[in-house]
Amino acid sequence: MTDALHDALAAALGEDALVTDAHDLARYEKGWRYGEGSARVVARPRTHEEVAACVRLCNEHGARVQPAGANTGLVGASTPDGSGQMVVLSLERLSRITNIDDANGSVEVEGGVLLSALNEALKERGRTFPIDLGADPQIGGMVATNTGGSRLVRYGDVRANLLGLRVVLPDGSTWSDLRGLRKNNTGLDAKQLFVGTSGAFGIVTGAVLRTWPLPRQRAGALVEAESGDAVVRLFEALEPRLGEFLTAYEAMSAEAVNAVLRHGTMERSPFPGGPPAYAVLVELSSSIPAETLDLEELLGEALVEFMEGDDPGIRDVVVGDVADFWHVRHQISESLREEGQVLGLDVSVPRSRMAEFTAEVARRVAEVAPDARVADFGHWGDGGSHLNLVWDPASAPEGRKGELQRIAYDVCVTGFGGSYSAEHCVGPHNVEAYREYTSPWVREVCARIGVERFGTVEL
Amino acid sequence: MTDALHDALAAALGEDALVTDAHDLARYEKGWRYGEGSARVVARPRTHEEVAACVRLCNEHGARVQPAGANTGLVGASTPDGSGQMVVLSLERLSRITNIDDANGSVEVEGGVLLSALNEALKERGRTFPIDLGADPQIGGMVATNTGGSRLVRYGDVRANLLGLRVVLPDGSTWSDLRGLRKNNTGLDAKQLFVGTSGAFGIVTGAVLRTWPLPRQRAGALVEAESGDAVVRLFEALEPRLGEFLTAYEAMSAEAVNAVLRHGTMERSPFPGGPPAYAVLVELSSSIPAETLDLEELLGEALVEFMEGDDPGIRDVVVGDVADFWHVRHQISESLREEGQVLGLDVSVPRSRMAEFTAEVARRVAEVAPDARVADFGHWGDGGSHLNLVWDPASAPEGRKGELQRIAYDVCVTGFGGSYSAEHCVGPHNVEAYREYTSPWVREVCARIGVERFGTVEL
Repeated sequence: MTDALHDALAAALGEDALVTDAHDLARYEKGWRYGEGSARVVARPRTHEEVAACVRLCNEHGARVQPAGANTGLVGASTPDGSGQMVVLSLERLSRITNIDDANGSVEVEGGVLLSALNEALKERGRTFPIDLGADPQIGGMVATNTGGSRLVRYGDVRANLLGLRVVLPDGSTWSDLRGLRKNNTGLDAKQLFVGTSGAFGIVTGAVLRTWPLPRQRAGALVEAESGDAVVRLFEALEPRLGEFLTAYEAMSAEAVNAVLRHGTMERSPFPGGPPAYAVLVELSSSIPAETLDLEELLGEALVEFMEGDDPGIRDVVVGDVADFWHVRHQISESLREEGQVLGLDVSVPRSRMAEFTAEVARRVAEVAPDARVADFGHWGDGGSHLNLVWDPASAPEGRKGELQRIAYDVCVTGFGGSYSAEHCVGPHNVEAYREYTSPWVREVCARIGVERFGTVEL
Repeated sequence: MTDALHDALAAALGEDALVTDAHDLARYEKGWRYGEGSARVVARPRTHEEVAACVRLCNEHGARVQPAGANTGLVGASTPDGSGQMVVLSLERLSRITNIDDANGSVEVEGGVLLSALNEALKERGRTFPIDLGADPQIGGMVATNTGGSRLVRYGDVRANLLGLRVVLPDGSTWSDLRGLRKNNTGLDAKQLFVGTSGAFGIVTGAVLRTWPLPRQRAGALVEAESGDAVVRLFEALEPRLGEFLTAYEAMSAEAVNAVLRHGTMERSPFPGGPPAYAVLVELSSSIPAETLDLEELLGEALVEFMEGDDPGIRDVVVGDVADFWHVRHQISESLREEGQVLGLDVSVPRSRMAEFTAEVARRVAEVAPDARVADFGHWGDGGSHLNLVWDPASAPEGRKGELQRIAYDVCVTGFGGSYSAEHCVGPHNVEAYREYTSPWVREVCARIGVERFGTVEL
C-alpha cells in the first residue's frame, strides 16, 4: 500500500487499529463458508466518526472499501476481491449496546454488535431480539442483508424490527435517525434504502431495534411428512388454529437428512423407518406459562386433528423433543460437502408453491444433470428454501455450477414468481441474476442516488 | 379546461369516466375532514393501464395530477389546490380483489379497494387484513400514508403487511412486483419508496397484502388511569405478561372525554365519578377459543396484579364491556369542533415518553395561549398521539394556529425525538415541518429520483 494512505489511516484511527500482518489478515479475507480475497489493509475503527473518517480517507486516496461484519453470509459479499487493493473496514469494535428502553421496547446498538451479545444483554431483562439464525452475525450485516431466519413467521425480518439507523454514506458523510419511533411517516423513510442492499447505500454503524418479551414456554413437534405437498397443507391447517403461537415451521428433505446420517455425528437415526420425504419442525411459543395454557397439548391436538382428516400425508408425529431436528439441521451444510460438489442457493417463492417449485427444479436439473441431487431444507412458513444441488465432481462437466444456478434461478423467478436471494442479498455469487432480473427503473433509481456497486461487485 | 386535454382523456378513458359537473365534482374537491380545492376535471380510470394513460396525457398537456383515494386523511393531501387547474385522478373504480391465497396468507387488490370491502371478502374465509382505523380508506391511500391504526401493536403498519405493489410513476411509466413474497432481498426494495410518501413517487394502482387468521375471541377492559405516567407504566407491565395477545392499547384524556359528554350523543357518562385523567382501552385477541383460554380472565388477573402493586395510579377497572370506550372515542373529533377552534395534530414519540411529552406540550402552549386546552387521545401502545389543541376563536389572536403548531412540533421533534406526522404523511397542513425537519441528504435523494412535490405541495 502507499505509505500515504496507511499513514493517514494510522493518524486518524491509531496504528493499533490497522491490521497488515498476513496471519492476522486471514480471518478478514475468507468468509465463514463463502468468499475469499486479499486485503490491502484491515481498518478497525472504534466509533461512527472513525468509520466516516476512514471512508473519507479511502476516497481521497482512491482506495475501494469493503465493509465487513462477521463474515457469515452465503454470497461472498463480506470479503475483499482478489486484487489486494481493497481496504477492509471491519465493524467489530463498534460493539456498544446502549439505551435499553423496555417501556419503548427498544435498544440502541452499534453496527458491530453480535446477535449473541445483544441477546445476552437483553436476556436478564426478560426481553429478546428474536431473529433466529444458524449463525452469529453482526447487527450491521443483518440490516445490510435483511435477515429473516427461522422465526420470521412470528416476528418478521430485520426490516420489521428496525426502529432507527445510523450510517456512513459512500462519500464519508453521515445520516442518522435513532429516535426509535414506531410511527413516523414524513416522506421517504430513508432507512429502508440501507435494508437488504449489502452496504451499497452506506455502512450501518448503528441501529435502534425493536425488542420483544422473552417467551415463558416453547413447545415443538417433529412431523414426518410423506410429500412437500403435505408440508404446505399442514401449514395451511395449523396457521388459523395456532395463530399467534406459531413461531417456526421448518422442513428438511430426505436427501438432506441422509447426508447427515452418512457424514454427521448422529449417534442413532431419529427416523428408524428411514427419513421421511420431509421432516418438519413445528414450534410454538407464548408469553404465558404452561400452567395457564399448555402449548404441547394444544399442538398435539391440532396435529391429531389434521392426521384424522382425509389423506393427511403424515407418517408420524412426535410432540415434545425436537432436539433431533436441530441436531440434524445444523449439520446439513457440512455433511453435504462430504457428499461432493455443492451449489447452495437461498431462494424464496410464495409459500403456497414451495412443493411444486422444488419438484420443478428437480425435474429441470435432471434434464441436464441426471446425477445431481436436490437436497433442500428451509423455512416453509415463509417460502424460504435453502436449495442445495449436490453431485460427484469427478463426473461433472466444467461450468456445471453456473448452468445449474441459472436453471434454478429461472425456475424460481420466471416460473414461480420467486426471488433468487431470500436473505443473503447480492454479492459475487449472484450478481449475474441481479443484472438479469432487476427492473431497469430500479437500476436507474440506484444509479441516480449514486449506487453503482455492491461491495466488490459492479452493478 | 382546454378541449384538447378533455378530448384526449375522453378518447382514452371514455366520456363517462370524466366528471365535470359542479355538483358531482364536490365530493372530490373536499376532504372528509380537511382539505378543500377546485378541480379542473375528475378522471376515473378503470384499470392500471388507464391510470398510466391518464398520467401521460396530463403530462403531455402540462396539467398537474392529484391522485385521490377515499379522502379520509388529515393533512389536506387528497384534494386539489384552489387553482381549478388540477386533474383529480380518482382510483375508486380500481376496486377488484383477486388472487386470494390462504396458504400464502395473501391477497391482491387494486388501489381503489376500500378497506371495508377487502375485509368483507376475507371474512368468509376466516381471514382479515387487520389494520384497524376509524375511517374507511382505499388501500392505495393506506399505502401512500402507511397507516397504522389501533392494532399496530399486534399487526404492524401497512409497510409490515405489504408483500407486493404496482404503481404508475410520475412520467406515466409503470413498475410492479406483485409476487407476494415474504423474503426477497435482491438489492433496493423499491416498493418501500411508495410507502408513506403521499403518492409523490408514484400512484399505487395495486398491492399484494398479507392476510391473517381472524381471531376466535376478543376481550377488553376499560381502565381509569390517574395520570399519563400510569398509562405508560401499565403498558410496560402488561406487555411481557400478555405478549402475543395484546391487540390494542388506546387512551383518551379527560378533556377529550368531557367534550364528548358535553356535545356528543352519550346517554349517560361511563364515568360516574367524572372522567379519569386517561381512560384506557386494553384489547386482547386470540386464534384459540375462550373454552381453551379465557382471555377475559387472563386480562382481569393481569390488571388485578398491577393494581395490587405499589402506587398503580389506577382508579378503577372494568373488564368486559368496552363499547363505551369506542362510543366516546369515535365522537371526539366532532365534539371538539363544537368546543371551538381545533388544531388537530397526528404526532408520535417513543412510547416510553408519551406522558412526559404531552405534559410538556401543555406547558409550552400555556405560555403563549393560556386559554387553549390540550385534548389528546391516541395509540399509547405505539407512541402515536392525536394531539388536539382547542380554544375559543373569539379570544384568540390571528395566526395562532400556525404558532401553536410550530410549538407542538418543536416539542415533539426537537424535544422528544418524535415525528410531526405519525400516519398521515405530508400535505399542505404540515409541509413547513417537512421543509424544516427533513435532512438535506434525504431531500437530495428525493430530488435525484425526481420527486419535487407531494401532490399540491412543492417541497
